[in-house]
Formats: sequence, structure tokens, C-alpha cells
Amino acid sequence: MGGTPPRSPLAPASFPDLPVIAGVEFATAEAGVKYSNRKDVMLARLAPGTSVAGVFTRSATRSAPVLDCQDKIGRDSRNAAAIIVNSGNSNAFTGRNGRESVSRITAATAEALGIDESRVFSSSTGVIGEPLPHDRITAKLSELAGNLQAGGIEEAAGAIMTTDTYPKGAGAEVTIDGQRVKIAGIAKGSGMIAPDMATMLVYIFTDAAIERDVLQSMVSANADLTFNCITVDSDTSTSDTLLCAATGASGIRVTEANTNFIDALRGVMLDLAHQVVRDGEGATKFVQIHVTGAQSDADARTHALSIANSPLVKTAIAGEDPNWGRIVMAIGKSGAAADRDLLSIWFGDVLVADRGWRAEGYREEDGAAHMTGTDIDIRVDLGLGGGTATVWTCDLTHGYISINADYRS
Amino acid sequence: MGGTPPRSPLAPASFPDLPVIAGVEFATAEAGVKYSNRKDVMLARLAPGTSVAGVFTRSATRSAPVLDCQDKIGRDSRNAAAIIVNSGNSNAFTGRNGRESVSRITAATAEALGIDESRVFSSSTGVIGEPLPHDRITAKLSELAGNLQAGGIEEAAGAIMTTDTYPKGAGAEVTIDGQRVKIAGIAKGSGMIAPDMATMLVYIFTDAAIERDVLQSMVSANADLTFNCITVDSDTSTSDTLLCAATGASGIRVTEANTNFIDALRGVMLDLAHQVVRDGEGATKFVQIHVTGAQSDADARTHALSIANSPLVKTAIAGEDPNWGRIVMAIGKSGAAADRDLLSIWFGDVLVADRGWRAEGYREEDGAAHMTGTDIDIRVDLGLGGGTATVWTCDLTHGYISINADYRS
Repeated sequence: MGGTPPRSPLAPASFPDLPVIAGVEFATAEAGVKYSNRKDVMLARLAPGTSVAGVFTRSATRSAPVLDCQDKIGRDSRNAAAIIVNSGNSNAFTGRNGRESVSRITAATAEALGIDESRVFSSSTGVIGEPLPHDRITAKLSELAGNLQAGGIEEAAGAIMTTDTYPKGAGAEVTIDGQRVKIAGIAKGSGMIAPDMATMLVYIFTDAAIERDVLQSMVSANADLTFNCITVDSDTSTSDTLLCAATGASGIRVTEANTNFIDALRGVMLDLAHQVVRDGEGATKFVQIHVTGAQSDADARTHALSIANSPLVKTAIAGEDPNWGRIVMAIGKSGAAADRDLLSIWFGDVLVADRGWRAEGYREEDGAAHMTGTDIDIRVDLGLGGGTATVWTCDLTHGYISINADYRS
Repeated sequence: MGGTPPRSPLAPASFPDLPVIAGVEFATAEAGVKYSNRKDVMLARLAPGTSVAGVFTRSATRSAPVLDCQDKIGRDSRNAAAIIVNSGNSNAFTGRNGRESVSRITAATAEALGIDESRVFSSSTGVIGEPLPHDRITAKLSELAGNLQAGGIEEAAGAIMTTDTYPKGAGAEVTIDGQRVKIAGIAKGSGMIAPDMATMLVYIFTDAAIERDVLQSMVSANADLTFNCITVDSDTSTSDTLLCAATGASGIRVTEANTNFIDALRGVMLDLAHQVVRDGEGATKFVQIHVTGAQSDADARTHALSIANSPLVKTAIAGEDPNWGRIVMAIGKSGAAADRDLLSIWFGDVLVADRGWRAEGYREEDGAAHMTGTDIDIRVDLGLGGGTATVWTCDLTHGYISINADYRS
């Protein structure tokens, strides 16, 4: 941790050119929470009138900052707000001290910005179970408050990284009633990634004006189709947090009827979710698993996640082995309905198994050819009904073992 | 596959000296199903009057031989019986051809031994989805029938191996009414190991006389405390089979009242289950996870398996890192009840976390010292109730990736 692992081979070429969101300013600082010589704290100030919605880990051992955010998230949104995030220490499983650290950080942020503490949302990511040296963060607040600027989102994306090999950003612009609204988001996460959710922090900003409850339902519904459909290693973090802030600075009101906005927001969320998978620890392949013909969407999702989380499937993909027997195994163990003799499997466009038996004319070299790419598509049809699901994962490689067998020591 | 991986560092020093079970004879042969220059078929002949009980995978895509065994297992047990097993090909996901192969093999076995086909139990283990060249097995049946001998159990244990690095056996003797009854068992399995059950084949023999239904309930109850409490990689095989044959040749009748017999049988099963984990693909550590204080035994088991199957926990153990934060994460994600502030964790005898916080006086070097051993004990107390569970697993290493990224290519 804190070293510089090589950039993921699946990373995008560069950080995208994101729209600047009116009503949001960013600042970053080197607080030395754990890392040296890098930015490890980011502050975002949100203009008065900003709505904030959130989705959080369902872990029973969630961290102190997550509990504090959950407590604050439903409150009204007339006043200015802030988001403060540190990397290096997750302030999770830190008992009463953890709550104390959150309180100190949010109080100091509120004071530095002259806003209400109930409007300061904090996140922490990094090692679990170590006391958070919150004084190092609070000592930086006046510097942070003095450096706030509208254009700092890329630096913010860098400051929240832990084992990430690249900063993650995505944006969109949507036309509503002839006027443009903008969306820009950043994320971090590369290990401990699984639905509900991951060691994943996501912050999305828009200048649309959206009622808090409306924003919350948009974000929750989109999360089920994006961040809750990715898995790196089936391990769920205690700290997962997605916050979405709508500043309203564009003056353009957005409601549930603006499906183009909802679609664009989902596009930004999906882009960020895919970037997290593409930075999966040790990943060399980006894998899409699409299941059709299940008895229900829920069954399709159970099968898709069983495939995506199977170590034997993931190592076969790492080895570029079109080992469809392991797909059959993963479906069989998932617990959801399946009939062996109705099951069909494709690798890319190659039909490998046709209703319970190796497809006539299937040649292993055709399956193998698809596996040599970096983007792998696995499709399964269960032949039982209309249920579908898509999930995304990466392969399981020596790189994952190397990163995680020495993460902390 | 078919190479000679180095013997697991966790393997016992040698194959045990097993009691010879009257009423059982073994033979092995080189049929060349997939491997060259090694025994890959084993036949066991069971004397008239033998009771046979079984436990099978619950996979929805279970193999043709498993379905055939399940169909036969409940029938009466007056006549002679046989077990025939091949390695190299699992005859799973082979459609109608799979059923045909089972039928050919069991019919040929019945004919060679002069017994009823309904009393021939077959198993196949190895690659999924390839047609089984059953002719190579049936061609060896007269040779096998001619070589049957009472003392051949160690060779039988060798013939059923796939990626196993050592043959697995365990035995016991029990005194019932002043007379000795004997138990001897063999197993194979090293990857795709998870509850319900594993790529695991287990054959246990006793000379006790036990009614079939009584034997079945003994075996089922013991399986829940042994083979269904181990996991290597959370992947469940389509072929898992445990058969237990009671020949009655000792003339000593055993019933549910003979708890010393049931305990001895469970001891044999637990020994074999532990040997499977100790041969886990790439394993360098044998890990016991003991959960207490859960709201129920079922909750305790859910937490224990969540810890045992977590890639982040398993890689930390591989790295000898006392990373108890990952234990907290695994408990949090399991879905069973937990209260962060009541949770305590031990590595060996070292109290690491005490009711929601790093234990006072805990020194990382004490936790680290326990992790350097080959046998790791993790204990978790939830502080909620009386539920307990124990499961066994191994670490996740580069060796697992190496074995499984090229298993088939």
C-alpha cells in the first residue's frame, strides 16, 4: 500500500475532460494520514440549496463515517454543504474513537466553511481497525478552505485513491427544455469490490435542480443497475459510499419525468462502475456476464454473480482457457433454478454449449480466440423464462495475490 | 492436469495403515481415460448383504453418474454390490451421451461380477463437458474383476486422484459388545471444494451390520459436521459423491444407539475432510475458523463460511498478515446478525479485537507470530447468543492461480 503499482492494462488512456459543475468547488491537501508525499484529503464545497442523496454499504460492520452520513442524508437541503474525504485509513471498527474522529472532522469542516455540521458528509477509506489520526486532517482545513476552486475535480479523484492505479472520472451533458445541465463524477475502488457495495467511494455532482427525495430515488434505482452489478472479489467493504449532489446552480428543474437525465446519470454511474472493475486488483481482463432465460431477474442475477465470483471461472479467464465446464459448475451451485439440459453458453459470438451439450461444430480454438482479448463476453441462456441480468467482473490473477498478500504488512 | 505438482506442504507424512474390511475387495487399472501411465479406474466389490448409503452434491447441474447413484441408493441391500470410479473425466454436462456412458459402465461391471446392475454405483471425476470414452473403462472390466483383493485400498485411493497431490485415507476400530468393528475410508479432492459438497469423492467401508436407513441417517448427520464444513474456493462440484458401505461381515449389528460407532465414523469423515483441505490447490496454511456467540448455529455457520471464503482473508493468511480488519469485513458482509461493538476476534490464543475495538495491549507482532505457523486458528465471538460453528479452509496463494489458470489448456 502506498507504493506505485503499475497502471492497470485495462485503464482508459487518460482522465476524461469533465464538465465544470456550477455550485461545486474542490480542494486537496497532503495531510499524511498514512501516505507520504501525496494528496490524501479532498474537500468539496456545495452551494446553498444543494440536494444530497446517498447509497451506502449494507455491511453490518459499517464504518463510523458511513453511519454519520446515513444519519444526515435525509435532512433538508436549503443550506450549503460539504464533502470531506481522506484516504489511507477507513476509520472502520474503531468503536467510540471512530465516532469521535468523525465528529472532530465534520465540526472542523463546518467551522472552516461557516456551514452547519449537519451538512458535512465525511468518508474515509483505507486500513480497517486503526485509529484515525483526525488531527492531521483538521490541521489542513484552513488550507483546504483557502484553496477551493471550481476546476479541481481531477485532483480530487486522485486524493481519494488507495490501491487504485488511476483516478476515475466520468461526465455527461443533457438537454432539458433546450438548456444544458451537466453531470460529473469521480470514484475510487479496486479491491474489496462486490455488490452492496465495495471499497468504493463515489461522488457525483450536477448543476440540475432536483428535490432531495427525487434525487434519492434516481440514484438508488441507478445504483442497482450499475455499482450493485460489479464484483472484483465478492468482498464487501465496511465503507462504501455514493453521494450525489445536485446544486441547482443551472436553474433547470429535473424531475422523474426527465428520463434522459436519469439515463445520463446512469451512464455516468455505469462508466465509473466499469472503471472500478477495470482497476480490479491484478485484473488483466474485463468480463461482462449476461444471463437470459432465467425464471426471474433475481434468479438471473444470482446465476450471473455466481459465475462472476467463482474463483475457478476467474482463473480460467486469466489463463485464456475457454473452460465452459466451470460456467456450468457455477450455475449449478448458485442455488437459483436451472435445468442442465436447457442450458446454452456463448463466449463472445461463439456458441459453446447448446441446450445441455457441447454445441455441434464447436471448436475449442474458436472459444480460445475470444478469450485472448481483454474484453470477455460470457452469455448464458437458461431456457426457463424471461429473467435477465448483466454483471461485470475481472479475472483473478497472480497480481491479485501479490497485492493482497502484502496489503498491510 | 496430469503433471506431478509437488506434494502439499500440509500433507500427512504417509498414507495411514488402514484396517482391512471383510466383505470388500479392490482392484485398479490403467484405462487411459485421460491420463497416461497411471491407474485411473478403481473397482470395489461389496459382499452380499451390504448396505449402501450416500450423500451427493446439490448442484442443479449434477453429473450423470450422480443422478444414477441417487436413483439407486435407496433400494434394498440384500445382493452383492460394486463401486466403480474413474478419474480424468467427470461425465458432467454430457447430456444423453452421459447417461449412455453410465449405463454402459454399470452394465459391464454388473456382467463382469455377476451382480444386478441396480447395485452398481459409479462415479467420474475430472474435466466437465467432454464425452467420457467409456469403452476404455469397459475394456478393463475383466482385468479388474480378476485382480480384486482385500488389501488394495491404498491403490484405490491413488486411482481416483485428479489434481490431488497425495492419496487420502483414514480408519478406525470400535468395540461394540466386546467385539471389534472396523471402518476404513478414502477420498479425493483438492479444488472446487465447498459445502454441498466439493469435487470430492469419498468411499467409506465398514464390516458392521447396519440397516440401510440407519446408515443413511448416520452418514447424513455426520456429513453436515465434516464434509459440509470445509471450503477451499467456494466452488461446488457437479460430481460430489460420498458412499458408505456396511458389509455386515463382522456379524456385529450397529444401531443409532451405538454412539461410539457414530463418533468413530464421524472421526474418519472429519479426518478425510481435513485431508482434502490440506491438499487444497496451492494451500500453504490449514485454517480453522470457530465462531461462537451467534444468534443461532445457522448464523454462526454463515459468518464462518463468509470468513473462510473471503479472498481478502485468504490472501492475508497466505501473506502471514494478522489483518483482522478483513475478518470484520467478512462478518459485516455475511448477511447474518452482528453488532460491531460486541465483536471479539482471536488469532490462536491472542485476543486481537475486544468488543468492537483493537484489544488493549494487543501487539501486532503477537498476532503475526501466530500467522507464521502452518495451522491457523481464527476465533470470533459475536456476543449475541449461543450459536456456534466450526469450518475449515486453506489460504489463497499464487499456487492456486497457477494450477487453475492452466488446468485444462
